[in-house]
Amino acid sequence: MKQKISIIKVGGNVIDDASNFQAFLELYASISGLKILIHGGGKLATEMAAQLGIPQQMVDGRRITDGDTLKVVTMVYAGFINKNIVGKLQGLQTNAIGLSGVDGALIKAEKRKHVAIDYGFVGDVKSVNTALLNQLLAGGFCPVIAPITADENGQLLNTNADTIAQEIAQALVADFDVQLIYCFEKRGVLKDVDDESSLITHINSAVFQQLTDEKIIFAGMLPKLHNAFVALEKGVSEVVIGKWSEIIALTKGLDGTSISNK
Amino acid sequence: MKQKISIIKVGGNVIDDASNFQAFLELYASISGLKILIHGGGKLATEMAAQLGIPQQMVDGRRITDGDTLKVVTMVYAGFINKNIVGKLQGLQTNAIGLSGVDGALIKAEKRKHVAIDYGFVGDVKSVNTALLNQLLAGGFCPVIAPITADENGQLLNTNADTIAQEIAQALVADFDVQLIYCFEKRGVLKDVDDESSLITHINSAVFQQLTDEKIIFAGMLPKLHNAFVALEKGVSEVVIGKWSEIIALTKGLDGTSISNK
Repeated sequence: MKQKISIIKVGGNVIDDASNFQAFLELYASISGLKILIHGGGKLATEMAAQLGIPQQMVDGRRITDGDTLKVVTMVYAGFINKNIVGKLQGLQTNAIGLSGVDGALIKAEKRKHVAIDYGFVGDVKSVNTALLNQLLAGGFCPVIAPITADENGQLLNTNADTIAQEIAQALVADFDVQLIYCFEKRGVLKDVDDESSLITHINSAVFQQLTDEKIIFAGMLPKLHNAFVALEKGVSEVVIGKWSEIIALTKGLDGTSISNK
Repeated sequence: MKQKISIIKVGGNVIDDASNFQAFLELYASISGLKILIHGGGKLATEMAAQLGIPQQMVDGRRITDGDTLKVVTMVYAGFINKNIVGKLQGLQTNAIGLSGVDGALIKAEKRKHVAIDYGFVGDVKSVNTALLNQLLAGGFCPVIAPITADENGQLLNTNADTIAQEIAQALVADFDVQLIYCFEKRGVLKDVDDESSLITHINSAVFQQLTDEKIIFAGMLPKLHNAFVALEKGVSEVVIGKWSEIIALTKGLDGTSISNK
């Protein structure tokens, strides 16, 4: 039987609130078993770009990463946020090691090609170096991963953290029983977005179809759920969407929305 | 016989010039054998602080690291510069992995205590985690280290990169035949600072005493040489000071100033 591992993506809204984030890291440190943390940058990159007078261009809700913006996200994600997380976890007796996708060629990517929009220095994941992750996990380290990758020429690329979490989860199924957890500020997939008690505790393919047909799942959640089913198809055992403050319960299947075909 | 390793510190002046730095990294990638690169930040941290309106306070030529400045150096050193170096080396088929002293508790430090001056968030090295370095080197990785460390509570600390290079070199003598190389914009220790042909090729204790007595070594070089002799006492085989463009020759003892008691 394969050993269980939890791949945990923490959302930007959690990072933005200093006291919530400290509380999240304390909970994270107490999770037993193998774990990998993936983080984005929250609002800090946008604030830093504004302070430096770098205009931010958004197309269809996505940031266009020009050269100056790439510099900012590399500084903020791989520098400030990653090292602060690692420092705090080390202070909590968790042997964290911070990496970006560039380090040890952890995540090979390529610049996004799009027929109509030039997203700039944005990367799409090509492959994950599971040997490096296996080596670090076997050494007792707890990887903390910032969403900066590089192409084969070493050009840095800004990469979606949700996607990195999913790709890492999928790549590790050969070696582990993989649970993929997205934690954010809501309790999970809700029938009524304003009512936390309307949590849908379990979604399988049939339930997903039914909820979609009944238009109960709102637009923003649809691509997340679609990606969750892709991860399940690739061998991930379970995808969980839930609230950061319940992270321990999420790892045990005791809260949040569990997406699986079990 | 122990395997040879080169611990190479690259100076800020080299990093500041984009084309020189690219040329340095191409040379670095071609060095055969085990190697570790330690870098500082050059002028970029100062420029970034100025752009963000963070006043920089210097006392006796040393930067006082307040909270805002710590944020800047963490972003610039551990984020922008570290990941750019790693990306470029990966593009040159060198399996670089970027770390700060915080990652995997690579370098444990403590906040500097000084009777008269509060340097702020500045760290002095307490210990080096050689097990982590050994594991990465054995795995074929080439560590690239940014000078940000943390204390036992996870508080990040700005730490002198020359000192980190020396401490890593000293810590690795148990496992390796260690060569410590400082490369910068000059050819090495010069009898006449304006004449590159006045290079002193070898300095041992007796020569050091003689040069000091004759006041041939200028003030800025004295602490560097003093530290070099401390490293030799701790078991480092050789300390080399030389020009970045001669890095291959420096590793082979064919250029620069070699400091050893051989």
